[in-house]
Amino acid sequence: MVRFVNVHHLARWVADTGIEALLVDLVTAMEEDFRRWPEFDKTPRVASHSRHGVIELMPTSDGVTYGFKFVNGHPINSTRGLQTVTAFGALADVDTGYPLMLSEMTLLTALRTAATSAMAAKVLAPAGASTMGMIGTGAQSEFQALAFRAVLGIDTLRIWDVDPAAMDKFERNATSMGFDVTVCTGPEQAVAGVDVITTCTADKRNATILTDEMVRAARTGPSGLRGLHINAIGGDCPGKTELELDLVKRATLFVEYPEQSFIEGEIQFLPRDWPVTELWQVLTGDRPGRTSTDELTVFDSVGFAIEDFCALRFLNDRLTGTDYFDEIDLIAEPADPKNLFALLPVPVAGA
Amino acid sequence: MVRFVNVHHLARWVADTGIEALLVDLVTAMEEDFRRWPEFDKTPRVASHSRHGVIELMPTSDGVTYGFKFVNGHPINSTRGLQTVTAFGALADVDTGYPLMLSEMTLLTALRTAATSAMAAKVLAPAGASTMGMIGTGAQSEFQALAFRAVLGIDTLRIWDVDPAAMDKFERNATSMGFDVTVCTGPEQAVAGVDVITTCTADKRNATILTDEMVRAARTGPSGLRGLHINAIGGDCPGKTELELDLVKRATLFVEYPEQSFIEGEIQFLPRDWPVTELWQVLTGDRPGRTSTDELTVFDSVGFAIEDFCALRFLNDRLTGTDYFDEIDLIAEPADPKNLFALLPVPVAGA
Repeated sequence: MVRFVNVHHLARWVADTGIEALLVDLVTAMEEDFRRWPEFDKTPRVASHSRHGVIELMPTSDGVTYGFKFVNGHPINSTRGLQTVTAFGALADVDTGYPLMLSEMTLLTALRTAATSAMAAKVLAPAGASTMGMIGTGAQSEFQALAFRAVLGIDTLRIWDVDPAAMDKFERNATSMGFDVTVCTGPEQAVAGVDVITTCTADKRNATILTDEMVRAARTGPSGLRGLHINAIGGDCPGKTELELDLVKRATLFVEYPEQSFIEGEIQFLPRDWPVTELWQVLTGDRPGRTSTDELTVFDSVGFAIEDFCALRFLNDRLTGTDYFDEIDLIAEPADPKNLFALLPVPVAGA
Repeated sequence: MVRFVNVHHLARWVADTGIEALLVDLVTAMEEDFRRWPEFDKTPRVASHSRHGVIELMPTSDGVTYGFKFVNGHPINSTRGLQTVTAFGALADVDTGYPLMLSEMTLLTALRTAATSAMAAKVLAPAGASTMGMIGTGAQSEFQALAFRAVLGIDTLRIWDVDPAAMDKFERNATSMGFDVTVCTGPEQAVAGVDVITTCTADKRNATILTDEMVRAARTGPSGLRGLHINAIGGDCPGKTELELDLVKRATLFVEYPEQSFIEGEIQFLPRDWPVTELWQVLTGDRPGRTSTDELTVFDSVGFAIEDFCALRFLNDRLTGTDYFDEIDLIAEPADPKNLFALLPVPVAGA
């Protein structure tokens, strides 16, 4: 039997654990997996693009456990009452090839994306960061805010979204959780004086959400900190970026997996030999993160299979001894493995 | 909610439908999909090789529906009481990216592999074929025999396997279904005088299961037919072949998808410009199948994503109005798609 974690199970697990405590532990697990990055099979995700979106498979393995995620990205969906991103995934045992766990991953992806952002910000954000400008307050935004509060103590947020209802929703959710939220009238205002900027928009175009000029203005703001970290999440497929290229060019750039990021990320318009740092090397100590207080750092996050693997193995480890899963009959298990046919009632002769 | 077909559902569906009737209809569905081959996204499967086996993802899409399969291949498993191949897969709606159906695919893969073999044999086997030599009587063998009987009327079988228990098992299963089965003492005897040879072994090596000399001897056998069709199933990953190269070289070769077959199939040791015919082009009538009664044809089957897609969409079409599935809570569905966070109980301020 294979473990199956449905949406209800996952939501209950998060609520019972406490989402901020869970995010802190997930960041620790993510750091462990990023530090052993060379142990993993790495391949760019397999994308199937269509008119309104993309469906992707994201596999990886650490040689002991194999994991993959199915995920879609359909920006048009929010106008249809559907989600932009939905996902599910599985873990399997490399030695036998048998699946171990199947899980919903819409919520789990939101958690892992927030944990990855916070893990990067731990080594890239200016010391003492306390304010974050958030451009895009869609489905991922509350998870980002909670991870940044749980891990870095950031509790003051300035927000902007082209959809006023999405801002209202975020303000309501975040205020009820004790955040200090300023609803802004434009992106310039949202990033003014902040220590960290998170861009998380879904538009599937080369849309300039954040310009170099906005960022230059932001850095002279009231916080007094001169350094700034940009956590760029939404630029994650070919033709879909969020940052003005001039801004990207003058920043110190950190990525997950260059082979994928140069196709999908903010750096997709830069030459392949443009200097970027792989985040895992910062976590192992082989490469520096932020090197000066006035540095402009960008984490060009596109999402990588190892992050999903980590979230799945973290979840699977936590399931043991709980009732946050069902067991499902996903894999045929004949008593004699060569007699698969015995699982079917034998038809009569000549039927 | 997403449809979920477990092993028990699938076995019940097969038994209630009648396996041979189902295989005949599945061959018809497969022919429809092979005839519209150019409509599909095609990409070689994404394989993760390890010491004892391989785990693969096999995606495709026809622009309306997306499908993928997770499948392992671990020949060592049968010595551990586990299956060599287990699988599951899903269909999704291309327009929204939402999953539609998740299904066990261990049994379904056995059915689709058998249907694909029979579909190829319809256009490649000698006219009037009535006997088949089967080398390898593992988990896939009964499905092959039933598809060849249902579609081509072949009911006389000569079998060989290195594992006597596997031959006993096959003889018991096949005899109870009315086949005329001869258990042989070696592969030479199993292929003597037959019209079709099916090789279906699991050894993950470049193992010569069938030599050119065995086949030359077979063609002078008692059936009187000079032509012969070889249905080669087991050579399906790099380094894993079943046929002697001299035999492959002198046969007329038919493959599913050359980009994958030249890596994984019997033709992996031939130069990339070696002439092969894509099976779908035979089905559309653009290329000939068998052209003479004495021709030696080989269907070098490695298994391709479109076959799995076809099996999944065939199953999904048949499910409507039945109870051969459950509905599962695989995808988070918040009332406001931008308020994914609302699915979690709101933590108290500062918690």
